Amino acid sequence: MTTAPRQLRLAAFFTPPGSHYAGWRMPDARSADMEIDDYVAMAQLAERGKLDMLFFQDSAAVASAAVNRTDDPEVQTGAARVVRIEPLTLLASLAMVTKHLGLVATATTTYNEPYHIARRFASVDAISRGRAGWNLVTSQFEDEAFNFGADHHMEHGLRYERAAEFFEVVAGLWRSWDPDAILRDKDSGRYFDPAGMHVLRHEGRFFKVRGPLNVAASPQGRPIVAQAGTSGPGRDLAARIADLTFTAQTEIPAARAHREEMRERARGHGRSPDAIKVMPGLNFIVAETESEARAQHEHLMSMMVDRIVLPTLARLTGGVDLTQYPLDGPLPPLPQSNSAHGRQDMLVAMAREKNLSIRQLARHFATANGHQVFVGTPKAMAEMMETWLMERAADGFMLLQPWFPTPLENFVKLVVPELQKRGVFRREYEGTTLRENLGLPMPE
Amino acid sequence: MTTAPRQLRLAAFFTPPGSHYAGWRMPDARSADMEIDDYVAMAQLAERGKLDMLFFQDSAAVASAAVNRTDDPEVQTGAARVVRIEPLTLLASLAMVTKHLGLVATATTTYNEPYHIARRFASVDAISRGRAGWNLVTSQFEDEAFNFGADHHMEHGLRYERAAEFFEVVAGLWRSWDPDAILRDKDSGRYFDPAGMHVLRHEGRFFKVRGPLNVAASPQGRPIVAQAGTSGPGRDLAARIADLTFTAQTEIPAARAHREEMRERARGHGRSPDAIKVMPGLNFIVAETESEARAQHEHLMSMMVDRIVLPTLARLTGGVDLTQYPLDGPLPPLPQSNSAHGRQDMLVAMAREKNLSIRQLARHFATANGHQVFVGTPKAMAEMMETWLMERAADGFMLLQPWFPTPLENFVKLVVPELQKRGVFRREYEGTTLRENLGLPMPE
Repeated sequence: MTTAPRQLRLAAFFTPPGSHYAGWRMPDARSADMEIDDYVAMAQLAERGKLDMLFFQDSAAVASAAVNRTDDPEVQTGAARVVRIEPLTLLASLAMVTKHLGLVATATTTYNEPYHIARRFASVDAISRGRAGWNLVTSQFEDEAFNFGADHHMEHGLRYERAAEFFEVVAGLWRSWDPDAILRDKDSGRYFDPAGMHVLRHEGRFFKVRGPLNVAASPQGRPIVAQAGTSGPGRDLAARIADLTFTAQTEIPAARAHREEMRERARGHGRSPDAIKVMPGLNFIVAETESEARAQHEHLMSMMVDRIVLPTLARLTGGVDLTQYPLDGPLPPLPQSNSAHGRQDMLVAMAREKNLSIRQLARHFATANGHQVFVGTPKAMAEMMETWLMERAADGFMLLQPWFPTPLENFVKLVVPELQKRGVFRREYEGTTLRENLGLPMPE
Repeated sequence: MTTAPRQLRLAAFFTPPGSHYAGWRMPDARSADMEIDDYVAMAQLAERGKLDMLFFQDSAAVASAAVNRTDDPEVQTGAARVVRIEPLTLLASLAMVTKHLGLVATATTTYNEPYHIARRFASVDAISRGRAGWNLVTSQFEDEAFNFGADHHMEHGLRYERAAEFFEVVAGLWRSWDPDAILRDKDSGRYFDPAGMHVLRHEGRFFKVRGPLNVAASPQGRPIVAQAGTSGPGRDLAARIADLTFTAQTEIPAARAHREEMRERARGHGRSPDAIKVMPGLNFIVAETESEARAQHEHLMSMMVDRIVLPTLARLTGGVDLTQYPLDGPLPPLPQSNSAHGRQDMLVAMAREKNLSIRQLARHFATANGHQVFVGTPKAMAEMMETWLMERAADGFMLLQPWFPTPLENFVKLVVPELQKRGVFRREYEGTTLRENLGLPMPE
């Protein structure tokens, strides 16, 4: 048996209206928050590029900075990301205008019920004939709590305990029906075979769910599960349950160590290390020439207003108000936040290792939320991606679109052919389901 | 000013795999539970017929009869309706393959969070450019409780209190953004106008929700709201909040009195009586000739097995096991059920007024769940519908499809032209939103 060359897994990631806080102000930027035609164009573009999937971030809230800072209209109105089409609903629409593309949406385990989530992803999976994926998160930030009856965000450790049980229920509900259980036998009048129905009867700390799910078996066994937690509990959950993990890594040695750790953890949970794909985020601006890419990047950075980007750090400081400190001075010591632990650790490490000021950190996080930033030519980008793949620092990348559509257009037009030429990316989709295209095994 | 002739409002209603318990066994019946192509065909057929909307029933559970009666495989496997695509997810798909058709899905207020529901319907409304509708229900039956942490169904009165507050929150969230509040002004960097953002800050008995909703204003003011409650609290809620009410009426005098009562109740809540459309359910089999229609009906009835249809009554008896009584004898006295009050009252009234046996009642409810049943020619059906309209017994009908596709196909091909000829149904859609097509006013 010959080993196929290693192949990149690629996701077009999108946070409406773009990953870069000022991206929406680029001259060519489309609104891509409420306009279905923009999302259709994005999905069809990603599919033309043979990408594995389109992947939507989500939050079930408008950020408190936008809601509360009415004393500072510039802060308030500069914060984009206030409206969007709910991404799981959106997937069902995009399934109708694509044939091969995987469709992944974020949904929180903290402010949802597992029966609803199992049902909705299973439904998108049926509509798309096996192309759905769930990015399982624990609600990083407190904003969502206020929309679901709580005064405070659930404690970090408890969120992960809930997430683990939430997943157990969802996965159990997805096993409700054997693939051949729905008979619809007109002659005998038998609609289903009771032997193929599995009633969950789950009773745990957080949930009590009888089941079965009222959706038939998934065309791909079950929807793909992604997880992006970078804290200890986050990594452990990902290693145990995730088909792919969305991680933030900026250097090859650390990324390689992280990937090996995740594979080792998966092994520890009795899984094949190849059953988990490690995909770092990659914020990118790519253009035909280096100077053109640089110009776009400079233009973006020139539109960053410190007073607007500073709030992007506020949710990672554990309550410390950074505006009380000199902007060009160092990050003060921070207490452990109840928000995203992993992201806070990254902020602190970055400040220390690279000796960055508060202003520099704020601008970095507003650009890429801690992820790697690439600015350059298609050849350089393909080279870099291939190197990460060959160095075993990544199984692929989450392509963070700073705005839509030019970055993704350029990637599909210029970088994809370069990757194909190098033999590290597909020329045609291999299968009909997302699981098949990712080369992942069926769940037992 | 001349008064336009009265026009019928028509919805194609669907409970997968059909309203009649044996409908799925008809030779031409398609599965229409998990197959997206069947739903696409249904939506496009309804739109060809210029129908106002497609309207999906829902339940977030497999019925307990199917789950628990493993001792009786015939009862268990004869109960269809075990799997389906979740209807609100489905609407987002159907929005992509239709242009004018209204898209309405049922979602319960008993086992949901208002922020999620407001967001999802607003998202379908954005995707469809103003064609979404919500059928607000209170979970008639206990089955759903078991999937959401409860051992028993919430008490009837409490369900309606919760529903009223749930709606208040959803409606408030739908007012979060003025239509012109999202500026996306690239030059100034202002993404939104704080003056056009309305933060709900709701605190009530059941819910605490800060808001605002993270979805922009609806193209039709807000999604259309339907309500089907027939108990006292149900009627009052509908009269207060619903754009249309789905009712069960089988005779013109009672239907006229009911419609007048609903209009009067609406007036009592300070609304125009024309702002609520009263639409009785209509189970129908229509064919070119009377004998053909009769033959289809006879074939359907021949496939009814008493042991299978009896459980359809079980949820309306308040715990009394009807199998203990002679099937051809009368209905025994029943205690008040915690399920659908209105439906139980209808059952009892029907038994008394028409002197029906338990077997006859079971067969009637398994056919049409208490709704009017029409079997006949296109001309007779159009005549009947026109009479109900002119007699002010209805503003239109919920067309209950006993199976798919022949009944709806025949309706569109044979009955719609007949109604158009009589001047009581549109030849072209009047507007672009569901609200416009229904001739309903914008909400304040």
